[in-house]
Amino acid sequence: MMEAVGQKRAVVLLSGGLDSATVLAIARQQGYEIAALSFQYGQRHSVELEAARRLAAAAGVARHVVMQIDLRVFGGSSLTTNQPVPKGRDLSQPEAGIPSTYVPARNTIFLSFALAFAEVQQAADIFAGMNAIDYSGYPDCRPEYLRAFETLANLATRAGVEGTLRTRIHAPLISLSKAEIIRRGLELGVDYGATISCYDADPQTGAACGDCDSCQLRRAGFQANGVPDPTHYKATTSR
Amino acid sequence: MMEAVGQKRAVVLLSGGLDSATVLAIARQQGYEIAALSFQYGQRHSVELEAARRLAAAAGVARHVVMQIDLRVFGGSSLTTNQPVPKGRDLSQPEAGIPSTYVPARNTIFLSFALAFAEVQQAADIFAGMNAIDYSGYPDCRPEYLRAFETLANLATRAGVEGTLRTRIHAPLISLSKAEIIRRGLELGVDYGATISCYDADPQTGAACGDCDSCQLRRAGFQANGVPDPTHYKATTSR
Repeated sequence: MMEAVGQKRAVVLLSGGLDSATVLAIARQQGYEIAALSFQYGQRHSVELEAARRLAAAAGVARHVVMQIDLRVFGGSSLTTNQPVPKGRDLSQPEAGIPSTYVPARNTIFLSFALAFAEVQQAADIFAGMNAIDYSGYPDCRPEYLRAFETLANLATRAGVEGTLRTRIHAPLISLSKAEIIRRGLELGVDYGATISCYDADPQTGAACGDCDSCQLRRAGFQANGVPDPTHYKATTSR
Repeated sequence: MMEAVGQKRAVVLLSGGLDSATVLAIARQQGYEIAALSFQYGQRHSVELEAARRLAAAAGVARHVVMQIDLRVFGGSSLTTNQPVPKGRDLSQPEAGIPSTYVPARNTIFLSFALAFAEVQQAADIFAGMNAIDYSGYPDCRPEYLRAFETLANLATRAGVEGTLRTRIHAPLISLSKAEIIRRGLELGVDYGATISCYDADPQTGAACGDCDSCQLRRAGFQANGVPDPTHYKATTSR
């Protein structure tokens, strides 16, 4: 006998970048009612939040919360201070290491808020765009990290302890290359022109720098697909 | 050969309540240089934040950050909404269950920020006042939860992955009764008159209600020590 149930719910972490836009499309395709969560955390520009708002609206999410958390008070990252963002790094070299754009414990903070939001929304599923292939080596993007968070999540909440929700952390991009992510998103109709990947976008025009890790990975991903990248890059970049 | 090292550092979660004030004193006694972290998270009153500021100043902490995070946008707790705080519950009954004062994923959020702060401060040690004896049954106060967070923490950060910090979560009160906590704090000279425990203190006078779970546990703890509770309780309570 089948029981009539409401639509299954998910919380999707939505930065406004290419990866999270693809994850949003994947969660939608899987039939979830979606609550999207973005953060104004003191990042250099709000271009990506505008992108998140456009993407959430276009996807028709049930709710979109932009949480204000000022990680600048801690410092420690070039994404939240006046430290320069590294440009032109050779990402093919393993010794590149974890760059200054690493924000201490950022994904742990983001997932913790997602867990709170999910419990209130009675959503068992949390989707996030972590990727451990074409990425900058951030520790909190690795599968073992995400498994540890899932274990924690099910010990942390009333819903987990009372057995009403079994939290699952979904990172559908975790083992995809950037080229594969873009291919998947194009199949799902993601409007990549509405996304922004650059760490150092022009706050006035929204133009991407073309040289930071994130721009490099994105450009290579589109090139590998033989598809034009709809991003507006600064005219002054070397490419 | 001994290497000259600076003072060991710790981040202490400081709510302004009795438990975290005791933890602060314990960390100080252990010789840590302390960075204290408090939250304005949309709780009903800011009386406890004023208490946290007084306690941090009195302890001479190296740094005190009050992080603003508005958990009211999620809702789901009587501590962050207009829902009434439960009063006069019989805490000796196991079926009392997890009350409405539970804030979804709150300790996970707090510990995540503490982890970020600790990494920036190069502090390996995080102290928090969780207690699993005289408490309200919150899932994120249990030893298994804290162990899972410690595991996560060491996978989450650059310092953990690069091996420069091995994060430890200290919950020195975890297995103490409220009476034992108070005894320990009195030995260490904690000024409990500067702390506030009530979930529903009067926002004007700061007077404690005397009947919520937190007030009940506190009163019983002082009574068991045969010591007067310096808290100012509302004159209208039944006691």
